[in-house]
Amino acid sequence: MTSTSRPDARACAEQDVKSQEDLELASAYVSDAQYNRNVFFDTSPRAVRLYLLYNRRLAQVLLYFFILLDLSLALWEEPAVVPLPPWATMLAELLCLHVFALRLVHYAKVIPQDKFWKDPKNICMIAVLVLTLVDMIVYGALHAAGCYALRWSRVLRPLLLVNVTEGRQLRRAIRSIRNALPQILTVFLLFIFSILIFSLMALKLFSKRGLKTSEGAAYFSNYADAVFDLYVLVTTANSPDVMMPAYDASSAFALFFIVYILVNTFIFMSVFLAVVFNNYKKYLKEEVRLLVRAKRHKMARAFAVLQECPEDGDAGEPRVSRASWSRLVRSVQPDMGRAHTELLWSVSDHQNRGAVDKTAFVQLADLLNIQVMTLKSRPHPLGRLCPAFYRSAPSRLLCRLVRHRAFAVAYDVIIMINAVFIGLDEDKPSVGYSEWAFLALYLLEILLKLYVTEPRSFFAAHCFWNWFDTIIVVCALVATVINSALQSSGGYTSRQILDIVFILRVLRLIRVVDSIKRFRTIMNTLIRIGPAILTFGQLILVVYYVFAVVGMELFKGKVKFEEDAAGGPAAADCGNPLLRGSAFARLGYCKNNFNNVLNAFVLLVQLTVVNQWHVLSSGFSAVTHKSARIYFVLFHITVVIIIINIFVAFVLEAFFLEYTLDKSNLHSELEKKIEELQLGVAQEALEDNLVNAEETSDQEQPADPSESVEPKLMFKIASKRYRTVDALLQRLFEADLEQEDGGDDAHDANGNFANPSFGSA
Amino acid sequence: MTSTSRPDARACAEQDVKSQEDLELASAYVSDAQYNRNVFFDTSPRAVRLYLLYNRRLAQVLLYFFILLDLSLALWEEPAVVPLPPWATMLAELLCLHVFALRLVHYAKVIPQDKFWKDPKNICMIAVLVLTLVDMIVYGALHAAGCYALRWSRVLRPLLLVNVTEGRQLRRAIRSIRNALPQILTVFLLFIFSILIFSLMALKLFSKRGLKTSEGAAYFSNYADAVFDLYVLVTTANSPDVMMPAYDASSAFALFFIVYILVNTFIFMSVFLAVVFNNYKKYLKEEVRLLVRAKRHKMARAFAVLQECPEDGDAGEPRVSRASWSRLVRSVQPDMGRAHTELLWSVSDHQNRGAVDKTAFVQLADLLNIQVMTLKSRPHPLGRLCPAFYRSAPSRLLCRLVRHRAFAVAYDVIIMINAVFIGLDEDKPSVGYSEWAFLALYLLEILLKLYVTEPRSFFAAHCFWNWFDTIIVVCALVATVINSALQSSGGYTSRQILDIVFILRVLRLIRVVDSIKRFRTIMNTLIRIGPAILTFGQLILVVYYVFAVVGMELFKGKVKFEEDAAGGPAAADCGNPLLRGSAFARLGYCKNNFNNVLNAFVLLVQLTVVNQWHVLSSGFSAVTHKSARIYFVLFHITVVIIIINIFVAFVLEAFFLEYTLDKSNLHSELEKKIEELQLGVAQEALEDNLVNAEETSDQEQPADPSESVEPKLMFKIASKRYRTVDALLQRLFEADLEQEDGGDDAHDANGNFANPSFGSA
Repeated sequence: MTSTSRPDARACAEQDVKSQEDLELASAYVSDAQYNRNVFFDTSPRAVRLYLLYNRRLAQVLLYFFILLDLSLALWEEPAVVPLPPWATMLAELLCLHVFALRLVHYAKVIPQDKFWKDPKNICMIAVLVLTLVDMIVYGALHAAGCYALRWSRVLRPLLLVNVTEGRQLRRAIRSIRNALPQILTVFLLFIFSILIFSLMALKLFSKRGLKTSEGAAYFSNYADAVFDLYVLVTTANSPDVMMPAYDASSAFALFFIVYILVNTFIFMSVFLAVVFNNYKKYLKEEVRLLVRAKRHKMARAFAVLQECPEDGDAGEPRVSRASWSRLVRSVQPDMGRAHTELLWSVSDHQNRGAVDKTAFVQLADLLNIQVMTLKSRPHPLGRLCPAFYRSAPSRLLCRLVRHRAFAVAYDVIIMINAVFIGLDEDKPSVGYSEWAFLALYLLEILLKLYVTEPRSFFAAHCFWNWFDTIIVVCALVATVINSALQSSGGYTSRQILDIVFILRVLRLIRVVDSIKRFRTIMNTLIRIGPAILTFGQLILVVYYVFAVVGMELFKGKVKFEEDAAGGPAAADCGNPLLRGSAFARLGYCKNNFNNVLNAFVLLVQLTVVNQWHVLSSGFSAVTHKSARIYFVLFHITVVIIIINIFVAFVLEAFFLEYTLDKSNLHSELEKKIEELQLGVAQEALEDNLVNAEETSDQEQPADPSESVEPKLMFKIASKRYRTVDALLQRLFEADLEQEDGGDDAHDANGNFANPSFGSA
Repeated sequence: MTSTSRPDARACAEQDVKSQEDLELASAYVSDAQYNRNVFFDTSPRAVRLYLLYNRRLAQVLLYFFILLDLSLALWEEPAVVPLPPWATMLAELLCLHVFALRLVHYAKVIPQDKFWKDPKNICMIAVLVLTLVDMIVYGALHAAGCYALRWSRVLRPLLLVNVTEGRQLRRAIRSIRNALPQILTVFLLFIFSILIFSLMALKLFSKRGLKTSEGAAYFSNYADAVFDLYVLVTTANSPDVMMPAYDASSAFALFFIVYILVNTFIFMSVFLAVVFNNYKKYLKEEVRLLVRAKRHKMARAFAVLQECPEDGDAGEPRVSRASWSRLVRSVQPDMGRAHTELLWSVSDHQNRGAVDKTAFVQLADLLNIQVMTLKSRPHPLGRLCPAFYRSAPSRLLCRLVRHRAFAVAYDVIIMINAVFIGLDEDKPSVGYSEWAFLALYLLEILLKLYVTEPRSFFAAHCFWNWFDTIIVVCALVATVINSALQSSGGYTSRQILDIVFILRVLRLIRVVDSIKRFRTIMNTLIRIGPAILTFGQLILVVYYVFAVVGMELFKGKVKFEEDAAGGPAAADCGNPLLRGSAFARLGYCKNNFNNVLNAFVLLVQLTVVNQWHVLSSGFSAVTHKSARIYFVLFHITVVIIIINIFVAFVLEAFFLEYTLDKSNLHSELEKKIEELQLGVAQEALEDNLVNAEETSDQEQPADPSESVEPKLMFKIASKRYRTVDALLQRLFEADLEQEDGGDDAHDANGNFANPSFGSA
């Protein structure tokens, strides 16, 4: 707010119709509030216009495309999946760097200079760009000179994902983790102490007994190995094996291991979950609390820009007129329908005074975030084209049949029978033919439904299962046709296409879940928290990428997988004589290597799953050095102990929310309004894809449906979908927040709010 | 309350001094309220007296002893750890049955006949006794006739633990699980559906490719095996192995397994935890709510028995006089000191009116549950015996030295050095001698502390670490002496004694944890929730016992472990040619068998830890039948999916409690009172074992300490220890309960409350 050139507040009286510039400023504020952006943008008209441009969807999509391109360069760089010459990848990277730099310059023009240089994420971004450039030059020079060169800056790439302006959810997650670290560290130290004590005990008890492991190695013979073995036991990866020699020697030693597992695996791991859960929640709640406050401040700012002089009759309260309000909403969400705008206005101005006061105005950001579906009950196109046929008795009987419950049940039975046929051997010709029959049946189902339901409402955005069915069936049809064409032309069957056909066939079976009510609620919850889980996907991606790049530098080419000589002598040592006879080679883990980024990612997934990670670890230790274990232990601590626990905590919290919380106030207010205006759609109608609603109108008004040319508008709140993760997070903590934030509503000098300090991750 | 012979309420005016019978009735009510017993006992004087006898600690201890004896009979019965003839174990079992029958008859005399026969736990108990008797007779007859006989009633034994009157916490846990089952079942079915779909997909994708597992078997060749393999993959036990053949064939197949693990292992397992957590908590909360209400009703009953006519001056409110109150408390807790009673009275009668009204009286049950430590600050016995010496300048300097922080730090350093020495090879004579030095140092520490601190307060019940130190050091001393004696007498070293010496030495190192403050808080939380975890211990014991007995019948003798021929040909097939070359035999799991109850328990622990459970499962399937898998899958579902999740939920909830809840009102009231009466002990004084407190008095009153012959009383609330699990549970939900239960305080006709219906588990 430093370089502001106009008086924002109390600018009324002079101008009743707000200027375009005011509107843009207000819409920037409202849009920021709606999407929980927190940018200290300059309020000069030029900066505001630039800022609106900066927030364009296209710009953001392009940015993420180039980030993905930059990250995916690992596919083509040495060690590569598909090798490209270094100049090609470096050229592509240079292009990406240019895009990021451009975006950064744009950002710098939007916000005041001093704010720009104080924001750690910009500094971090610049540092990443400069370091990458330096690394590229050094690498190019060394490469040209024929020296060994290392592209170390590749580790920095995931930082782009974190430090880009749009990465605020990811930054928030990382901040929460960082704040929770001290508490986690305490438990971790105690846990390590416990492992050290138990290892010492194991060393004293077992080292002198001359026991051998099943591989013939000495049993608990030195302290470092004992610590590592017992750390692995915490993860249960070597569970009975590490105990067997001692247990074979004496049954009493089983007690040692049982106590160890009880203390370290069951109790300490639960405590980790508890501490991570509690701290993560605590800090996230604090962040979301600040977020909500910032949102209100921004809305208050927007209000101050748009407010008009109080009229004489009123108590002098500032207001925003309907005209300004409508222009604002139109400029914030250009794609919103007129009817929808009217609805929001009638909720905001529920006393019908032609203007909204501050309290009602501040709600706008939340109102915009509530997804309202505009349903237009149109007559069926067939009914318009040949009404005589469509409204004939057989046609109406057909419609009634398709809408009947028995139709759905019949198709569920067909799916079940199909499942049995899929399970049968597809080489039998009868089974092969049956597949055509099933495909025809499914196609018929979709066509019948389309005959009954208006196509546009059948393919409405919220009709997940309709889309699902149609896509699966059409794809299966295309793939099956291609497959048969190939087969009949040359007797040749493409395995890839056949695989796709199989997967599509089986996926079709999932449809059954939606027919069973008790499953549907769980599925809906899962689908609902799905988008929020994507933040964790990003977090995992960042961590995986860093570990993959480091791992590739450390271990590339040490373990080789030869595809041709399967079972031959080459496979017995994974191309490395050091692995001969090791568990790694014996179990056939040769393809679990760091020879390209895809293999590295698959290996990291296996480490995340934990089981047998010690075999992988010892394999890579064998081909390099014992200290390679550190890499694997670090990965385990980072991903399994911290991130997976946070993931579990998040799912737990989301489920508890589903079980306990009801709708928010605003939701129910909006819903009430919709009901009041008689624009609502019954829940059942929606679930049956408007079938019932149409049926009702069918029965009540037997007149020609083509009479009602004007499509009737209906609204439905998609109350349980969250557009943004922020919305879900806010809802997660809404119950606690509402009590706190009742007081300090909006009267704050500063419209923006400072993020908690955040360095580079 | 049916066969009551006296009017309970409003029996005042006639008798101001309450009869012994009234007192017993009231104390039965109060004791029930205190320990959350919920018994519909008869209120006739004879029944009440019998009931008080029934609740005697000794009777309960004896009962649990016989239950344990009954359970431990599995050690001696076929397949036995130490075989005894059948008549011996059956005689012992008969004795146990007699005891249980006696206890049941006693219980039947205490409660009204109709209540007795309506209570499912009694019916269940009788059924268990009768069935066991029948089984014993049938077995005896068959055994005598030389036929094959099965002692199937052994499965019923753990039901005793559940259905015994004292097993109410266990019953509550089982009830909560049972109530949560429908919800869990829904998720479980969806989870199974997901596995079935993925298995079908795997079958279609992989069965025709001619792939082989690393063991050379066909890969996903039939549906049942595919389902089992993928179920095992959910538990991550066969994590990379099951994927490797497909991954080796094509990298793209890794995607199938990654999606599978993401959906089924990460998401579904989190959802399981969420559903189990949420439902268990919900039902447990409801139970505890009923419990709290029942407690208040019982206290109201006791009040009605003891109340006196209101005096003229008062507003007609019934009261309980101090005399009745004191007699009541003395009869409920005979071991309570006079001072403690006084303290409780002063809290109850905080207005000093010589009587308590109903509200204050009802609190008594909670007051009794608050553990108050009575500390007597006595002069040191040495100070009394030879005051001249004890109070001399060098002696006082020594005391000051020992009390100094540096003393504790010095000993922490000594412990660290000791840890290093323990790690060194103990065969070197210098290391062996050093152990004597460390032992001497530790002994010296204890003696010095005893010199400074009054012995009785040094060994107070709450001084956990003092007890810990002394026991460990004394045991280590004894064991080391025995070991050296053996060694010097015949050069013979007993491994067992040496093992004990080692364990004691290492345990000594744990002491360091208490010196580090941030560890102490976590340790305290863990110690605090320890007793509550015992309920889960019982639950686990019940489930383990049933599975162990069933497993022994199914699998006994199928797998043999030969101790002598280690590494010989006998070990290669675990005494069963069917296992030759199997993973089970190759990994040396021969001792993981069901050949006696101890081995079975260790095996079940391994199944609980999950890793490699599929190897165990396939081993036992190989020697019996493929359907043996069902046993292992059932165990996994019961223990890992349900009970372990509940355990995790409990630990989580207990930790959240520690982070969020403060002291209860009653606690702080009692504490305030203690402070008011200047009987409190500073927290630090307590932590330093009264060292500081004495030091203070030492400095302020340099007069002869032997003057204050009367030991000074001090109180300290052991606020964070819960005597009963019920108390912890109540505290877990206290915040929610207090709002609800404010209204219906005590005015209820029925003093008891009905348990939620509960059949046999």
